[in-house]
Order: sequence, then structure tokens, then C-alpha cells
Amino acid sequence: MFGVTILGNNSALPAYNRHPTAQVVTMNEHLFLIDCGEGTQMQMSKYKIKRSRINHIFISHLHGDHYFGLAGLITSMGLFGREQDLHIFSPNGLQQIIQLQIQVANMALPFKLIFHTIENEGILIEEEKFRVKCFAVQHRIPCWGFIFQEIKKPRKVNNEAAIQHQIPAAFYNQLKEGKDYINKLGETIANELVTIANTAAASYAFCADTVYLPSIAEKLQKVSTIYHEATYLKDLKERALLRFHSTTEDAANIALQANTKRLLIGHFSSKYEDLSPFLAEAQAIFSNTELALEGTTFEITA
Amino acid sequence: MFGVTILGNNSALPAYNRHPTAQVVTMNEHLFLIDCGEGTQMQMSKYKIKRSRINHIFISHLHGDHYFGLAGLITSMGLFGREQDLHIFSPNGLQQIIQLQIQVANMALPFKLIFHTIENEGILIEEEKFRVKCFAVQHRIPCWGFIFQEIKKPRKVNNEAAIQHQIPAAFYNQLKEGKDYINKLGETIANELVTIANTAAASYAFCADTVYLPSIAEKLQKVSTIYHEATYLKDLKERALLRFHSTTEDAANIALQANTKRLLIGHFSSKYEDLSPFLAEAQAIFSNTELALEGTTFEITA
Repeated sequence: MFGVTILGNNSALPAYNRHPTAQVVTMNEHLFLIDCGEGTQMQMSKYKIKRSRINHIFISHLHGDHYFGLAGLITSMGLFGREQDLHIFSPNGLQQIIQLQIQVANMALPFKLIFHTIENEGILIEEEKFRVKCFAVQHRIPCWGFIFQEIKKPRKVNNEAAIQHQIPAAFYNQLKEGKDYINKLGETIANELVTIANTAAASYAFCADTVYLPSIAEKLQKVSTIYHEATYLKDLKERALLRFHSTTEDAANIALQANTKRLLIGHFSSKYEDLSPFLAEAQAIFSNTELALEGTTFEITA
Repeated sequence: MFGVTILGNNSALPAYNRHPTAQVVTMNEHLFLIDCGEGTQMQMSKYKIKRSRINHIFISHLHGDHYFGLAGLITSMGLFGREQDLHIFSPNGLQQIIQLQIQVANMALPFKLIFHTIENEGILIEEEKFRVKCFAVQHRIPCWGFIFQEIKKPRKVNNEAAIQHQIPAAFYNQLKEGKDYINKLGETIANELVTIANTAAASYAFCADTVYLPSIAEKLQKVSTIYHEATYLKDLKERALLRFHSTTEDAANIALQANTKRLLIGHFSSKYEDLSPFLAEAQAIFSNTELALEGTTFEITA
């Protein structure tokens, strides 16, 4: 399953039992944590997220509502006896804070903490079946968005048929690329006989905290699902600009321009108790919008 | 009202919807926050604690479950436009962490943050009607307990009677000390005629995280209510010692030796879902024991 579970959808001031930003992306049996606001470890317990399966954490920027839960999560992982490495991707400054907190506690973590400072757009992780990239957004301090992409070969091997035609396993990767096989007798086995079309690769983008920035839409062309912040309703456009945040309209316009299939909106200001106007305003521009409600898992499909 | 409200009563790993340590002492119209584990600001909202009325925060030690909520609380106070000074008392190291977090966020707080490093036992705050002191306990890293004491003159002036006997207001403080008044005619007005006995001064002690330490009982003689941690049940005495924590028996013995009126126990290990054995074990030694349950306000009387 490729999906994202929302753990926190509120802006800086926790309100109405909404929590600061945190999301967990599940992709290829991996769990990736995006941002880690205060209380994230409690939200993980509440929504049955297995901490031990998280090996990579991505922090968009160093405003507290996006990382104040990280030190507690790391401490708890240590108390649970975690042994595998934990990779943390973030702008510069986080490593110093976390290491200082570990040092004053005179704590010896039983696992390795590996910090990766984000300085440029590009690939953060690339494996056979997926890739994670970062892209710049524009906020009051350096801030990054993240794209999670499935990597799929165009075709899948039909095992039964491939065995029947005596195709060696070493050739399977070429089959997946669409190549025909020529056997020892010189006969050509047409690719279509031994493969089936794969489903398209899906992708998910998290746009962090950002002012309305059309270049984001260019960078996210045809991403399957986009999460874009919508801190304010459209009548507070000026305030949004002033604080480097976006409105419902901004988020919906980015989704429209990016030709995405679905938009999730979140990072709601604590001004608002009722979120239904957020949905209505965004849907008026981009109909397939959903509220990033806490505890909800959205499946990501192409 | 002199009282303490429990916001968090669990040890390091949050569990069973119990939160890391935080308590609010109300005394003489002041609110004092003791420790500030992750999620304290959410617990304050839940239990209707007015953040704006807190001007003094006491952090017992720099294990995360006692201060990881502080940066979030300070940030939120700033977003709420707080202007009055905030005093933070803690062991060395906290100022550097908080200032680093403020710096990376490029945040300008609208109020002054004043750090006081605790290095010795003694008085932290002394005003006319109350006093806050700290005392050393013994944990894995430097750790402090706090005592909140009402200051009351032995007697209260009976205003009506004092006016009737033409005693000048300038002499009232001496009346409160029990002195007689001699008027212009040389007549002695007996103190009992114009004053009534005051109620006794009450006091509350928070013993933080500590191994069983008999000297604590010496320092807390006749404190009205003592909060003492009881991380484990008595059968885990060895583990408690190893981790510089206490058991139910340890806490109850300290209460007994200190001649206190009431014992509150908390900082329960996440091993335990059911807390009733904690109460039973402690009450077997010190009957007036209560569980420091979250959301409960305990009135402190002499």
C-alpha cells in the first residue's frame, strides 16, 4: 500500500484537539515520517503507527510546530531499545539542537542517528522501487517540500508464461522494460506473451509551509496527490502573504496548475473551529480536494 | 486557594493516555508551572489552565519528559502576544537549548525570557505572602525538588476592633506578630482584643525524579503535602535503584519520616496500566496517600 496518514493538521497553536504538523507516508513496506510537531509520538500511539518501522524522518523547516516532537520521539525510540539507524533530513540547525538535548540528558542512544542537511533540491533517497526528492518552497525561514515517488517498470513478468517459454530469471528485468526474448533456437518470444502491463507509478507531494508560489506547480506536474497548506480562508489573503502562508484558493490553484489528481489541505489556523468552509472554498476551484483530517489514511494511486 | 493541578503523571514513555510530568501550583493568585513534558500546552488547554497567568516555571532536571514541552509553550505564549517577563528556573543547559530553538526559528519573542540557573539549595522566590525554595534530590543527572510555602503572620487584625481602639494602621504589622498596643493615654490594648488567630501556613513539596533518599524527609519536615515519585511497585526495588527512581514503599516511607499530612504519588512507569496497586502499596505504609491523577486539583491545607 502507498498511502499517507495524517497525525497533525493544525498550524502553530494547537487548538480544537488538532495537533501540529506530522504525517506518515507508507510506501513499499517503509514508513516515512514527515515533520514531527509536539505530541507526534502520542498521535502515533493513538493511530497505531509502529515507531520501530520508521527509519527516515523528513523535517520541512525549523519552526517548532514542525519538529518539537522529534526529541521526544527519538528518546522514546531509545527507551524501546531500537537498534537500527535513524536518518533525519532537515535544514541546517536541527542536529545541533538534538545533540545538545541528548548531551544534557547524559543519554546514550542504543541506535545511530544520522543527520542529512538539506541544502539543494534533488534526490534524498533512491532505491529500486521508490525515490524521495525535496523541492524548495518559500516560507519565513528555509523550508522544503518532499515528493515520494513509486518507481515501476513498464511491465510485470507473468511468471507462469515466462517459465513455460524457458526464459531465464536473469532476463526478467529486461522483460519488465518491454524487451523480447530470443531463445537458444533463435526463436523470438514476443514480450507481450510473457508480461502484462504494470499499473502506473503513483506519487505524493508534501508542500510544507509556503506562500503561494506558482513554481511549485511546475515542479509537481502530474504528481498523483498533493498536500498543500491552507492556513487561512480566502478573505485573509493579505495576512497569508504577510506570514508566508497560503489560503484555500492558493492551494487549489496550485493543484489545478500542477494537473494533480487530488489535493489534500491542512495546517489550519487555530482561528477556525469549523473546517467546512475550507473544503467548500478549495473545491470551488479544484473539486477533488479533501481535508487532511487527523487519523485519516489517504491511499495514493496514480 | 493554594492547590496543585496535575497535568502529567507518567514516566518517560507516554502510555495509557498518561502524559509526561507537569503540574501547576496555584498560590496567592499566582500560577507556577513545575516541569513541562511534551504536550503540556495541550494539557493546559484541556484542563483550562490560563497560560498568561504563569510567570514562573521550574524545571527539575533536563530529562526530556520533564521539559520537552517548554519550547512549544514559550512559542505559543509569543504567538498569543504575551508581554510580561517569564522566569525559568532550571539546572544549567536549558537556556542554551531554548535560545538555539528560538534562533533557528528566526523568532522574536514579544516578551522577556529570564533564565535562572539552579546551583544550590535555597530560596528561589521570596515575597510577602509566599516563598519558593529548591532542594537537591538524587537522580542520574542534577535534579531539584521544589517547596512552595505560604507565609502567614501568626494573627490577623480584627479591623473593626482595631478601629474601635483607635490603633493606627502603621501598627497593624506588629499586631499580626502578637504585640500589644499602648495608646496615647498609656493604656495597654491587649493583642487578643484586636486580633484573631490566623490559620496555619500550608506548604507543598515536589520531589521530582529521585532514588529513595532519607535526607529528603529531613528537609521536608511537616510540609503539608508532599508529591513523591513512585515509578515502580515495590517488587521492582532493584530496578528503581538502578534507574535512580523510587517505589511505592520508598515514597510512603519518605512521607512517614517527613511527618507530612498527605502524600501524592506519580511518575508511573509505562509498564503499568492499572494504578490501583500503587495506591494500595503506598497506603499500607502511609494511609493518606492519593494518586496524582491528571486533571485533578489537590487543595493544599496546613
